[in-house]
Amino acid sequence: MIDQHTICAITTAPGRGAIATIRLSGNDAISIIDYIFKSPKEGKLIYDQLANTLHFGSILDPSGVVDEVVVALFKSPHSYTGEDVVEISCHGSVYIQQRILKLLIESGARMAKPGEFTQRAYLNGKMDLSQAEAVADLIASETAAAHSIALKQMRGGISDEIKELRGKLLSFISLIELELDFSEEDVEFVNRDSLLELIIEIHRVIRNLTNSFQYGNAIKNGIPVAIIGDANVGKSTLLNFLLKEERAIVSEIAGTTRDSIEDVITIEGIPFRFIDTAGIRSTTDTIENLGIERTFAKIDQAGIVLIMIDATRTDSDEFFTKSRIIEKVTSKKSVVVINKLDIASELEVVNQKQLADKLKLPSIAISAKKHLNTALLVDFLIESVQREGLSENDVIITSLRHFEALTKAGLAVERVIEGLKQGISGDFLSQDIRECLHYMGEITGEISTDEVLGNIFKNFCIGK
Amino acid sequence: MIDQHTICAITTAPGRGAIATIRLSGNDAISIIDYIFKSPKEGKLIYDQLANTLHFGSILDPSGVVDEVVVALFKSPHSYTGEDVVEISCHGSVYIQQRILKLLIESGARMAKPGEFTQRAYLNGKMDLSQAEAVADLIASETAAAHSIALKQMRGGISDEIKELRGKLLSFISLIELELDFSEEDVEFVNRDSLLELIIEIHRVIRNLTNSFQYGNAIKNGIPVAIIGDANVGKSTLLNFLLKEERAIVSEIAGTTRDSIEDVITIEGIPFRFIDTAGIRSTTDTIENLGIERTFAKIDQAGIVLIMIDATRTDSDEFFTKSRIIEKVTSKKSVVVINKLDIASELEVVNQKQLADKLKLPSIAISAKKHLNTALLVDFLIESVQREGLSENDVIITSLRHFEALTKAGLAVERVIEGLKQGISGDFLSQDIRECLHYMGEITGEISTDEVLGNIFKNFCIGK
Repeated sequence: MIDQHTICAITTAPGRGAIATIRLSGNDAISIIDYIFKSPKEGKLIYDQLANTLHFGSILDPSGVVDEVVVALFKSPHSYTGEDVVEISCHGSVYIQQRILKLLIESGARMAKPGEFTQRAYLNGKMDLSQAEAVADLIASETAAAHSIALKQMRGGISDEIKELRGKLLSFISLIELELDFSEEDVEFVNRDSLLELIIEIHRVIRNLTNSFQYGNAIKNGIPVAIIGDANVGKSTLLNFLLKEERAIVSEIAGTTRDSIEDVITIEGIPFRFIDTAGIRSTTDTIENLGIERTFAKIDQAGIVLIMIDATRTDSDEFFTKSRIIEKVTSKKSVVVINKLDIASELEVVNQKQLADKLKLPSIAISAKKHLNTALLVDFLIESVQREGLSENDVIITSLRHFEALTKAGLAVERVIEGLKQGISGDFLSQDIRECLHYMGEITGEISTDEVLGNIFKNFCIGK
Repeated sequence: MIDQHTICAITTAPGRGAIATIRLSGNDAISIIDYIFKSPKEGKLIYDQLANTLHFGSILDPSGVVDEVVVALFKSPHSYTGEDVVEISCHGSVYIQQRILKLLIESGARMAKPGEFTQRAYLNGKMDLSQAEAVADLIASETAAAHSIALKQMRGGISDEIKELRGKLLSFISLIELELDFSEEDVEFVNRDSLLELIIEIHRVIRNLTNSFQYGNAIKNGIPVAIIGDANVGKSTLLNFLLKEERAIVSEIAGTTRDSIEDVITIEGIPFRFIDTAGIRSTTDTIENLGIERTFAKIDQAGIVLIMIDATRTDSDEFFTKSRIIEKVTSKKSVVVINKLDIASELEVVNQKQLADKLKLPSIAISAKKHLNTALLVDFLIESVQREGLSENDVIITSLRHFEALTKAGLAVERVIEGLKQGISGDFLSQDIRECLHYMGEITGEISTDEVLGNIFKNFCIGK
């Protein structure tokens, strides 16, 4: 059931701008706007206007003119929500935004809940559920990679893939269930071998999607990188260098600001989240154990570990022995970063490299201060991002909800494969295929519950 | 000379929103959009569309789709700037905003300078200069009073008044200058008495406008209020009470945030700026003199002074004697606020009131803690706002630039009056009237220089 009440919200970013936009959607959107909006042309009503047109005029409340605005008119079903939609572009003072919103509410609209416009778009069949979810991701995207994945999803990438799989499964199940109707006669409409072949193909696609989640999730939340090392080996210098590289790109265009998350650094469109990098002091008192505990915890959170050592120091092997990190880092993408290349002798660098070789870790000698070989380190970071088997145009999932549904679908598919190999009867096969169809339908929203919808849309911003 | 280059800027508030809008204005606005925008309808060009229409489609750059957007098309001269204008409503991720802006710049537009859209609107005759200035005030307005004044000015309030005055003056000067052509014949086309009558009327109007500046400026910048008093008389409690009253109103509408200026409290739409209210300690050491200096400085800045005393204390007269504030406060709107009415005896309150009477100051007994009589204090604040001789519909000036031009115009008018009384010759009269016309023309921008324009528009935000 769609709540038919006309809803309104400010859709532009909060705060003062040159222009702000307030969106109104629902059956009464046009009558409400005609109640509070006056065109300079005598007697002109928005009600009488063509869809997809713009109209200049004043917003009035009982005390007089509130603002001069431009009204954009979209008519059902050709609007974002599928309902009649009116968007008011007003002067961007916070006071004016509030006053127009208040006036809309007094005129019969109510405040939209988070994501409610998009929820209505979904309920009115303007987009499926995974596309609706992608709208929130798109708005939140701060990097080229996150943007690209969200946009692909919004434009139907995942839906297309899932719908194709589901279509294939549906053609199976109808044949298998047809067999059940003729069960007395012991016929097989479906060649079990070609069914198996097809279901293995489906399994492969589902597995690729679930596998893409690790990358997708990293792109969405930032790839965690731990820089560990003794105090004063140059961890902050390296971080500041990476940060500055990014800032230079970001500040290229004037007049735009960025929600800055201090410890996320975007390199070639991929966000890297640097985990707190307080130095470990490899002393032998009780504090050391605490330091090792903390370092271990950091490594556990990380996808990539940069182990930084000072090329000019002779106690690097001691650092490795005492910190015992080697136990932890082998399961991660790790590299030994030999810093201070600018002041180290060639022999010192070779010694450190041999130490890394002995530990079976790759190494890069750099100078964070003089920016020597830092490009190599950046390349290492980029190449470390796990895109195993993913190509540029592959669909990538980023949502835990999709991952879970696909995992459940995958398990059901595995049961189908197992059943086919063991030659189980059609009714059991049918049951597993039905389950698989169910979980895949959950992704696109062909199957949904109020609870699922509630959980999805509560995380949207108001105004979308 | 208008710079014809097509300009672009984000017009909505900085940061992430559901929707952001990017404005493009100039001769190439439409060809640029046709270069980067693709409608789902094959071959559809924005160039071929009717003015004031909305179009859904995709923004594309060499790497692919950047976003799905709605494009609003305005055609010259029926647009904000008077030029062709295209507004792109995109998903409000900061990343997308930057990427579209970058694409526009790569496609031949340049970043708009602060206020450049409005400057073009002025240069293209869409509004006069005082209206253009009002746009910035309107966007900055945070209170009902500031909003009302800015809106009136943007809708031509001051311009109308000034233009009417200027028209009257122009009709004089043409007759007086006609006299000069016939100077040999010693004729008078202008009856000097009716001229004087009219010029006194003009003088009155100019004076009213200049007088309104005090109020207008206070509304724009907040009316400075000093709360002074001994430590622990309840100054913070009062401030917090006023602040809470306001917050309750502001937070009525969810989903809106407010640029909060901590020490400005809006009461009934009027902003009061509370000046730092650290307590004075009336001890008799050297620090005291410093305290008094600080208090005097505060009072100098204030338009309204609240002198707060504790009803239960018996040393209030000592506070007045030692602080010597009475020398300063008589020239201000001042009131003695007798606090702690809730715990004081009736006699104590009467004694404090008599003290205030003796000092020839009004007094209000309140309890800031229990909110007793606080409404009376609020009324005092509202009534203290100087609207001398101003009625609801009067035009109010808020700009120092207008004030200065009007003051100079007023001085010239006074010389005209003086000259008329002394019967000076037409050529001197003409000179003073010309000067008056000049300054009035500066307000509406009928007379302007690049320097004046530069100073005005540099204070705008980018995107307007």
